[in-house]
Amino acid sequence: MTDTFKFELLGTDGKARRGRVHTAHGAINTPAFMPVGTAATVKAMMPESVAETGAEILLGNTYHLMLRPGAERIEKLGGLHKFMNWDKPILTDSGGFQVMSLAQLRKITEDGVRFRSHIDGAYYDLTPESSTEIQRQLDADITMCFDECPALPAPKERVNEAMQLSMRWARRSREAFTHRPGYGQFGIVQGGTEKDLREESVEKLTEIGFEGYAIGGLAVGEGQELMFSTLDFTTPVMPTDKPRYLMGVGKPDDLVGAVARGVDMFDCVLPSRSGRTAEAWTRRGSVNLRNARHKDDPRPLDENCTCPCCKNYSRAYLYHLTKTKEILGLMLLTWHNLHYYQELMAGMRTAIEEETFDKFVVDFHALREQGDIEALL
Amino acid sequence: MTDTFKFELLGTDGKARRGRVHTAHGAINTPAFMPVGTAATVKAMMPESVAETGAEILLGNTYHLMLRPGAERIEKLGGLHKFMNWDKPILTDSGGFQVMSLAQLRKITEDGVRFRSHIDGAYYDLTPESSTEIQRQLDADITMCFDECPALPAPKERVNEAMQLSMRWARRSREAFTHRPGYGQFGIVQGGTEKDLREESVEKLTEIGFEGYAIGGLAVGEGQELMFSTLDFTTPVMPTDKPRYLMGVGKPDDLVGAVARGVDMFDCVLPSRSGRTAEAWTRRGSVNLRNARHKDDPRPLDENCTCPCCKNYSRAYLYHLTKTKEILGLMLLTWHNLHYYQELMAGMRTAIEEETFDKFVVDFHALREQGDIEALL
Ligand SMILES: [Zn+2]
Ligand SMILES: [Zn+2]
Repeated sequence: MTDTFKFELLGTDGKARRGRVHTAHGAINTPAFMPVGTAATVKAMMPESVAETGAEILLGNTYHLMLRPGAERIEKLGGLHKFMNWDKPILTDSGGFQVMSLAQLRKITEDGVRFRSHIDGAYYDLTPESSTEIQRQLDADITMCFDECPALPAPKERVNEAMQLSMRWARRSREAFTHRPGYGQFGIVQGGTEKDLREESVEKLTEIGFEGYAIGGLAVGEGQELMFSTLDFTTPVMPTDKPRYLMGVGKPDDLVGAVARGVDMFDCVLPSRSGRTAEAWTRRGSVNLRNARHKDDPRPLDENCTCPCCKNYSRAYLYHLTKTKEILGLMLLTWHNLHYYQELMAGMRTAIEEETFDKFVVDFHALREQGDIEALL
Repeated sequence: MTDTFKFELLGTDGKARRGRVHTAHGAINTPAFMPVGTAATVKAMMPESVAETGAEILLGNTYHLMLRPGAERIEKLGGLHKFMNWDKPILTDSGGFQVMSLAQLRKITEDGVRFRSHIDGAYYDLTPESSTEIQRQLDADITMCFDECPALPAPKERVNEAMQLSMRWARRSREAFTHRPGYGQFGIVQGGTEKDLREESVEKLTEIGFEGYAIGGLAVGEGQELMFSTLDFTTPVMPTDKPRYLMGVGKPDDLVGAVARGVDMFDCVLPSRSGRTAEAWTRRGSVNLRNARHKDDPRPLDENCTCPCCKNYSRAYLYHLTKTKEILGLMLLTWHNLHYYQELMAGMRTAIEEETFDKFVVDFHALREQGDIEALL
């Protein structure tokens, strides 16, 4: 526990940064990956198992939690940490992104968004003020600004409008934020893949002043190359003394490329969602456990992985669980995937500390190019 | 590990027995409850969590495992213990009961049963010999005889026919059994609710000679009263120096009543299945977590329970997981239910040791009659 929210930059290797974020619920070593706990649970995982994978912070979804069970209810029950039995830091998104993708009959005005719940059709309003208040009720260590994020590609004029609105909402979000020791709020840089818009957005946010800065509006259909080139001109103009969080990213090679470009924090449903669709991520790429080549294979998914899935079970067993749709299959593959993601982050942290990040990147890609182990004859 | 399969009778209190079964994979303290691991997994549980609940033996289903992934495959992969990462004892059923309830186009002859798989429609034969061989391939510590079990009520003539066939099959099962140190085979007493048939069945089985004796053909629709009255005349004629296993039973009060009547072992899908339908079993009866009375309740399911579900989560959270259909809800409730069942067995074992079993039974019923804790206002 620390009584102030702060970021320590412990070291750099090229643009890659090794840091530590201090919050009311403990420290987060960066680069960090945040598993997603949408409805107050990382699907198919006990929270102590999530912690065992090495995760130091979770992401919660404001949109889902405000609808069910409701932020007021969670506050009365002692906050999200207690509710879901996770005493480490929690970051909540603002709800804006998921209103756009999940809710019905959305109407955006200067004030905010009016929408109908995808669960029961009831009307709700989400504004910079109400989103910030909901995140306080949830007791999020890191609160995100309410913003508008257009899908890409989009005309520059549309991207600009959304960015300008998001900047006005960022100011209102900041004004609505209740300062508490160890709690912070992140502004979200918007501007699509446009250099001048990203620069203007960073300038406006830093003028307001936040405990950290997120890069929003990427990984929304633009592809890895454009995402990386956008990071290339965005991170250099961002403050060096605050954490940088790339929202909704991503695949293992996205994470490595973004860390190389100076990003500190990530979140993505991919490792947990893949675990529920029989796709495993290993140092040698992805493995589809539905493939009959695994049917008689006594070998673990990854012989060098130390997760319970790889230590105790064969590919043949994982194939069996997948074919029989057993819940344990989802549990084991989710565990492995989250473990692999955390191990990847830990490997990057060590490489930055030892200033061998370039070599780490080369080795990372070389092993993936080899692909999965040969099938048994 | 012991090199011979044996049963120690450690003490009695009335008809209730405190014992220990020694097998190739360790000892089982009785009275014992065996969680069901149908398809080589206790649904929604890591095997180490099953062991943490106190379970010392699992039941595996021959019918499911012979179809998927296949007994030969499991044997090649090192046996069921290794396949599913459970190094304690395993008992397998003979497959007969589930052929009757799940398979299509069953045809029973003197030789055995021909059926079509409910999964892919393929034809299979199951005989006393093949069932026994499959259980050896699975590496079951306790092999069950292949038998026929008619639903009740049934005409006495029908029950007699099934019992006589089961006794001929028991002899063939015994002849097909490969004796190995620490491995045993149980005969199954049949005869419905008929005293003379049950006595004849016990006589025929003890003449063959097994390492243990099961009571089959109960909990198939006859009701608790008839089940208990059948136990009342069956256990007294069974050997005292061998374990007695009541198949497919049951609810908590069934277990207490059957232990009082001299039964040592049980299996039932109830605690794990209930865990997947939001029904929890506690010392005060059953609790439906779908009920809105739990919505804002910060109290645990059972404040005296030491399972992870009760130690770390509120009823409000369990209600939330149930409403949102989160996998963690199934995981936590299954864990609690299995924990409760094991705690119930442990309580009975202690009461028999201390010769206070009568008091245990009175207290057990008194607490259940109080019902669940009052709802919060
Ligand atoms: Zn692994
Ligand atoms: Zn419990």
